[in-house]
Amino acid sequence: MSKLTYRRRQSARPAPHSGEPTYGPLTPEELQLAVRNHSLPLEALRYDVTPPGLHYVLTHFDIPHIDTSAWHLRIGGAVERSLELGMGALIRDPAISVQVTLECAGNGRSLLKPRPLSQPWTLEGVGTAVWTGVPLAYLLAQVGVEPEAVEVVFTGVDEGIQGGVRHQYARSLPIAEAMRGDVVVAYKMNGSELPPQHGYPLRLVVPGWYGMASVKWLQSIQVVTAPFGGFQQPVAYRYQHNADDAGTPVTRIRVRSLMVPPGIPDFYTRRRHLARGPVMLHGRAWSGEGAVTAVEVGIDGKWAPAQLEKPAGAFAWLAWTFPWVADPGEHELVCRARDATGAVQPLEQHWNYQGMGNNVAHCIRVTVE
Amino acid sequence: MSKLTYRRRQSARPAPHSGEPTYGPLTPEELQLAVRNHSLPLEALRYDVTPPGLHYVLTHFDIPHIDTSAWHLRIGGAVERSLELGMGALIRDPAISVQVTLECAGNGRSLLKPRPLSQPWTLEGVGTAVWTGVPLAYLLAQVGVEPEAVEVVFTGVDEGIQGGVRHQYARSLPIAEAMRGDVVVAYKMNGSELPPQHGYPLRLVVPGWYGMASVKWLQSIQVVTAPFGGFQQPVAYRYQHNADDAGTPVTRIRVRSLMVPPGIPDFYTRRRHLARGPVMLHGRAWSGEGAVTAVEVGIDGKWAPAQLEKPAGAFAWLAWTFPWVADPGEHELVCRARDATGAVQPLEQHWNYQGMGNNVAHCIRVTVE
Repeated sequence: MSKLTYRRRQSARPAPHSGEPTYGPLTPEELQLAVRNHSLPLEALRYDVTPPGLHYVLTHFDIPHIDTSAWHLRIGGAVERSLELGMGALIRDPAISVQVTLECAGNGRSLLKPRPLSQPWTLEGVGTAVWTGVPLAYLLAQVGVEPEAVEVVFTGVDEGIQGGVRHQYARSLPIAEAMRGDVVVAYKMNGSELPPQHGYPLRLVVPGWYGMASVKWLQSIQVVTAPFGGFQQPVAYRYQHNADDAGTPVTRIRVRSLMVPPGIPDFYTRRRHLARGPVMLHGRAWSGEGAVTAVEVGIDGKWAPAQLEKPAGAFAWLAWTFPWVADPGEHELVCRARDATGAVQPLEQHWNYQGMGNNVAHCIRVTVE
Repeated sequence: MSKLTYRRRQSARPAPHSGEPTYGPLTPEELQLAVRNHSLPLEALRYDVTPPGLHYVLTHFDIPHIDTSAWHLRIGGAVERSLELGMGALIRDPAISVQVTLECAGNGRSLLKPRPLSQPWTLEGVGTAVWTGVPLAYLLAQVGVEPEAVEVVFTGVDEGIQGGVRHQYARSLPIAEAMRGDVVVAYKMNGSELPPQHGYPLRLVVPGWYGMASVKWLQSIQVVTAPFGGFQQPVAYRYQHNADDAGTPVTRIRVRSLMVPPGIPDFYTRRRHLARGPVMLHGRAWSGEGAVTAVEVGIDGKWAPAQLEKPAGAFAWLAWTFPWVADPGEHELVCRARDATGAVQPLEQHWNYQGMGNNVAHCIRVTVE
């Protein structure tokens, strides 16, 4: 999209963000979001399971404070028998644990030009955790989904205003996705009760999908017979060309890799400084669309394959390594992954109106001394 | 400082930050720091002890990964007998637990005009935790401090470049502060081992001082007979008028209060929306210089005292409450605290060159419907 021809438009559609994408500097509103939410410091890619406090967090509204003695999960809608379950009942249900890499659909947004006005992620809106809870399919089987059902709607306790629309955060899944065996209604993260910012006491986790599907502070599960029309579904989280375009829904995580920056940083610029000699580059790769089949590392534009380890689950990142002998000077290190669908990370990012699904290759510049 | 007369200066002193303070927009470097580090979402002020992942984090360099089987704390310098202690030995020493509010010395920096170029905090670089470990005074008594000692230097494992100077993060304390009974060499945060980003396996916690004194990833404690000259002491963390001014050291936390924003937020602007009628405003207040003696709340410029609760420790925040009957319209809610030294939060912030010790009163704008 050319800078000269890009203009504000009046649209009949509600706005997903506040104002049109901009070439201007970062706004105070974006900064407020950046200091509230946070991403994975890249050096924390070394952990197969992200320690508490390092996993990315995006909260649309406020983190609710929930008194579990008064809290119930309601399951209803187009079902044979509605249910209302307290935490005690949920914990007695059969449980599974799944190791899952979650990534924010807006990861990388701040790098786009023009830049959509929302949470200004650089590239680190990601993390991997072990989520424990009741399979959603088990709960749906208990209530008995009616044959005319098309989607399941998940509503969180968190409430606020977005695009001028006051609502509780809510998202839906098609029935087929909701019935997958690995979608979990989770009450534990890495073996402990959920931290407040990750959805205490209960959240959905949808392996393979961008994070917006994994509704936190879950309050209700409703089976519906028509596609869900809440703000976060037909308005937000769409791949759109412009404000008038209904677009297509954001669903599964596109293939991506990241690298642990080698050497030591400059505090302000984060520029990396490294001693000459052999160094093992390493990082992670993941995809929600198919297994990662390759990671390539480009050193100053010369590409070679990295060694891949086995991931801990179908939708958990894998570790990769790449030996390099660093010679003095300035170098550009890039990693890009490929998955079983044949998708590969682009070297330049495709633009879209909401800044969704950015999966550009990761580039780190280092000075070798 | 007038915008017209503010000019770049050449200084003989090393630069604490990258470039002179600016009236310009937020830089990509500041954004990188903002998404890496993170602050307390204001709604988390409701917790007396901040849950994991919500406490503020500032990391100058990378979060180190430390293998405790090979790690030792070295205590030496101007002492009668040096010590080298593994975690096993430290855990067998007598332990204390202290509940402490830590705040980043640069909290509020992004609100200054011109704005120093560093981590661009808004007002939320704070958190409260229970820290458990060995009293520093106990360890110093074990090694026997020589009479000519003037300071104790604490060095972390984390290494990087700041202001052009390559160094491991290190800070000192005067002997009298180091011998206080509540300064702790901590291996637990809120009853669990330290998270990587909070200093695993061992850190210093200096109650009452801004966070820069509480050195993380502690590797060595050295008693010295001359003031410490490392980068983070005479260069960084100073109250300076300009680049040429040696300034005065940043030490104890200035009195401050914050308010839980009432009502619900707009996602992008964080503007608050509230229903008319009675609402209990609440928040926290703390000071490293003396007990908090009062919190006042100003509603549209009319001030009245808040109710104070007892803090959990001499350097832990206290809770305050203030009943309000919200009538429709736009309102400005401000809180400011006073401490036993007579210090009170200013309504407009005094500027300093590094953006240190900002403790301006907290203002929240709400729309009541």
